Amino acid sequence: MAAPDGRDEANRVRIFDTTLRDGEQSPGISLNRQEKLEIAHQLARLGVDVVEAGFPIASPGDFEAVQAIAREVHGPVIAGLARANAQDVDAAWNAVKDSERPRIHTFISTSDIHIVHQLQSTREDVKGQARAAVAQARGYCDDVEFSPMDATRSDLEFTAEVLQIAIDEGATTINVPDTVGYSMPDEHAAMWRELYRLVPDLTNVTTSVHCHDDLGLAVANSFAGVQVGCRQVECAINGLGERAGNASLEEIVMLLAVREAEHGLWCGVDTTEIARTSRLVSRLTGYQVQPNKAIVGRNAFAHESGIHQDGVLKERSTYEIMDAKTIGLESNSLVLGKHSGRHALRNALEELGFTVDGAALNTAFKRFKEIADRKKVVTALDLEAIVSDEMRQSESAYTLEDFDIEAGSERAPFARVHVRRPDGVVAEGEFTGDGPVDAFFSALNAATGREARLKEYHVSAVTAGRDALAEVTVLLELDGTTAQGQGVSPDTMEASGRAYLRAITNALANSPVAEAEHHIEAAAKSATP
Amino acid sequence: MAAPDGRDEANRVRIFDTTLRDGEQSPGISLNRQEKLEIAHQLARLGVDVVEAGFPIASPGDFEAVQAIAREVHGPVIAGLARANAQDVDAAWNAVKDSERPRIHTFISTSDIHIVHQLQSTREDVKGQARAAVAQARGYCDDVEFSPMDATRSDLEFTAEVLQIAIDEGATTINVPDTVGYSMPDEHAAMWRELYRLVPDLTNVTTSVHCHDDLGLAVANSFAGVQVGCRQVECAINGLGERAGNASLEEIVMLLAVREAEHGLWCGVDTTEIARTSRLVSRLTGYQVQPNKAIVGRNAFAHESGIHQDGVLKERSTYEIMDAKTIGLESNSLVLGKHSGRHALRNALEELGFTVDGAALNTAFKRFKEIADRKKVVTALDLEAIVSDEMRQSESAYTLEDFDIEAGSERAPFARVHVRRPDGVVAEGEFTGDGPVDAFFSALNAATGREARLKEYHVSAVTAGRDALAEVTVLLELDGTTAQGQGVSPDTMEASGRAYLRAITNALANSPVAEAEHHIEAAAKSATP
Repeated sequence: MAAPDGRDEANRVRIFDTTLRDGEQSPGISLNRQEKLEIAHQLARLGVDVVEAGFPIASPGDFEAVQAIAREVHGPVIAGLARANAQDVDAAWNAVKDSERPRIHTFISTSDIHIVHQLQSTREDVKGQARAAVAQARGYCDDVEFSPMDATRSDLEFTAEVLQIAIDEGATTINVPDTVGYSMPDEHAAMWRELYRLVPDLTNVTTSVHCHDDLGLAVANSFAGVQVGCRQVECAINGLGERAGNASLEEIVMLLAVREAEHGLWCGVDTTEIARTSRLVSRLTGYQVQPNKAIVGRNAFAHESGIHQDGVLKERSTYEIMDAKTIGLESNSLVLGKHSGRHALRNALEELGFTVDGAALNTAFKRFKEIADRKKVVTALDLEAIVSDEMRQSESAYTLEDFDIEAGSERAPFARVHVRRPDGVVAEGEFTGDGPVDAFFSALNAATGREARLKEYHVSAVTAGRDALAEVTVLLELDGTTAQGQGVSPDTMEASGRAYLRAITNALANSPVAEAEHHIEAAAKSATP
Repeated sequence: MAAPDGRDEANRVRIFDTTLRDGEQSPGISLNRQEKLEIAHQLARLGVDVVEAGFPIASPGDFEAVQAIAREVHGPVIAGLARANAQDVDAAWNAVKDSERPRIHTFISTSDIHIVHQLQSTREDVKGQARAAVAQARGYCDDVEFSPMDATRSDLEFTAEVLQIAIDEGATTINVPDTVGYSMPDEHAAMWRELYRLVPDLTNVTTSVHCHDDLGLAVANSFAGVQVGCRQVECAINGLGERAGNASLEEIVMLLAVREAEHGLWCGVDTTEIARTSRLVSRLTGYQVQPNKAIVGRNAFAHESGIHQDGVLKERSTYEIMDAKTIGLESNSLVLGKHSGRHALRNALEELGFTVDGAALNTAFKRFKEIADRKKVVTALDLEAIVSDEMRQSESAYTLEDFDIEAGSERAPFARVHVRRPDGVVAEGEFTGDGPVDAFFSALNAATGREARLKEYHVSAVTAGRDALAEVTVLLELDGTTAQGQGVSPDTMEASGRAYLRAITNALANSPVAEAEHHIEAAAKSATP
């Protein structure tokens, strides 16, 4: 769908993905640099127009991840977020400047409720900050986006004044966020019509919507904006983002694709990469997609009732408005076995879009062989899971060496584990009591000297075979910090141990103490326009 | 919010809940009679206007569940679904007739794609069937709803003809379903305006929307219908339903509540029962709600970014448009301990809305004592989980007697279990190999003589304490049938065993063989207008 095919360029909607910025702000998500890069590469493959890669001022880790994406990911514009102050804009520019197509995205609240209570400032001051930040950003970069935060609860005439200032200073995209997910479609369309009336110069820039799903209307509000003239939609894979999340990228894209004949709008996304992007993001963030989620849920293309099944067998279109193939759900035929060599693995990985060479290929091959020994066939879905798992392995502070578990109704459950710590020392942990799974996790706590507490634990089978790989997600709390970790193995308990140790690693990396060590202001950690 | 408080009755939107009909059609959901009753009682507590209790012709089990709900649940209208034929309408009436407020809901497709390919019939025939079914239903019952299935892809003039017939025959509610989730808000509003023009008699009946979420627009399309005059919304808890599901009840209700000052519409639902209803439905169906789900997701009221947290601390309304208390999320102070007696338990259960007496109270008390012995305090959330678990226990064909597990990195995992079968015989099962969790499930397969295959496995902690109860959901496949099961215990493995055995029980109950034994036509199992 990337080729215009005679379509009207004026009706092209830019897809701005904020999975790595607003999505990454979701509680418990802690993506490392390598994971962020992998998602950004996949977003480029998906064909999004803009990747908002992060909030560079928030932490050295955020800065480095945005910089790596700017340097290594080609195709999309790479944007960095900045509050409307000199330090933030500098950090954003330094992080994105090596991109072929850098963008600085700066924002400030225009609602009185934010100005009075949070910024403890005045409207005049907000105008001044917006003016200075856009001017500074424009001095660095031709591509500058400005957002008036909480716009849908702002005095529209004041917002219009601020937008005029941003355009006068050279902003090329104006994004109007519904920060708290408060808007309704008609109201959203009316707001835009009024803004176009108040600020005629809006027709000279790209206008953009950014909607949150607190009342279940993020996609509808975004679409209402597009129908009255906006040509950029900010959205996230699987609808991730603060609270109830942002508009789902996959829903926006498929709404454009399925109903194009009626609304005449289109975008450049390759829809056949949607399913895979959704799986990757779900796997790396640990955020499960619910079965009844539109487009990417397990049931989105399932027909359960007898009447529906009967209809689909007679004629698919009776109950289907889109084909599962359109989003890349057709079964992939790629299959390896235990006799497949390094070359075959490398080709298979390349076919999946992973470039793996040198030491990484050796590690991946070793892991592949271990799994192929325990599992007859290794499919494309298995390889995806294994590569993601290896990507995390290298970043885990603790690694599971071995474990031993005994449990029964008639005796107290007992678990003993050995864990390699960051300093290379192998520590033993034991626990007696509760159930065997509980004893196992408690023994891991003992070996790491941490008091983590399990909140959620999810196991899914990667493929349908009897010998399927188990993919485990653990959500735990450690000293007030919630964190997730994932693990993959043919042995569910081994995968659980890996996931648990990674969650501990992530919790430590995100704890207030770790933050303080990195000299980061808590309030600067992140932000949502 | 049940009292009109001087509100205009003409602006009251009726909430029609279809969790037990369209929701129950989701793959893997298999609610037994007692579970359906519990959900229906909770829907009455929530204050919905109509409970669509099921599709009585589909199976004897469906019929009996609808009948039990009609007899025992007071307050809402109780509706039964029927295709437009005499046998279906008879079954629906017989199932609902003992309700204080019965409704027959009959439907037939009006789209050519359905008429030609599925019904293999003609428009004339469809008109005749609609006429006869509504007339027959009206002969039984004053409250009759009619739905033209797949209306949003139908020739609107033909649909209008059919609606006129249904009204002439006495239908009191006209529901127009977007069966395949194809509509867009503006288009949906335009469709309704045209229907009102073509069928002026629509102003003499209750008009109703029924939208599916395939493109993420179910709530917005429903709301568009309401804004142009519809006064009933068909929706489901947690947005359950065919494929991507129906409009989420909780999103519709909170959209009405939060923005009432602007749109002037309202409904009679007690919003403070929303969180609990969502938990109950999630627990009994095994369908997890994703963290970023609007209103009822774990993160819906969480603030992660530093800027948002800072704002909320200074003034909640900076980033919150609703209070978590509004949906019943405030912490419940009810706490029992191991010294609490039968009387205290009964009072606590009554406070939670459960009426438990006689043998059921004895069983619940025994279970409560077992758990209180292993857990310092038992909270309201724990009691909710325990009661749900007991409700399922009585219906499980297989029960876990005991288990023994040994596993380690250096030795092959081994599991031995004893399972009581439906015939009372205790069978032993053993398995060596894979991981300990896998060996445990394989041993359960051996004991039951079934070849079930685990697809997903989810564990969550019911409360936040160190000694939290584990609540486990298992999704498995057995001879081509997918089924879920749930279990609760302080021991995660024990809860897993219970959940696994219940999922096997559910799979057997729903297998095609079991269906055939019940002399049910596969095509009649269920339906979605």
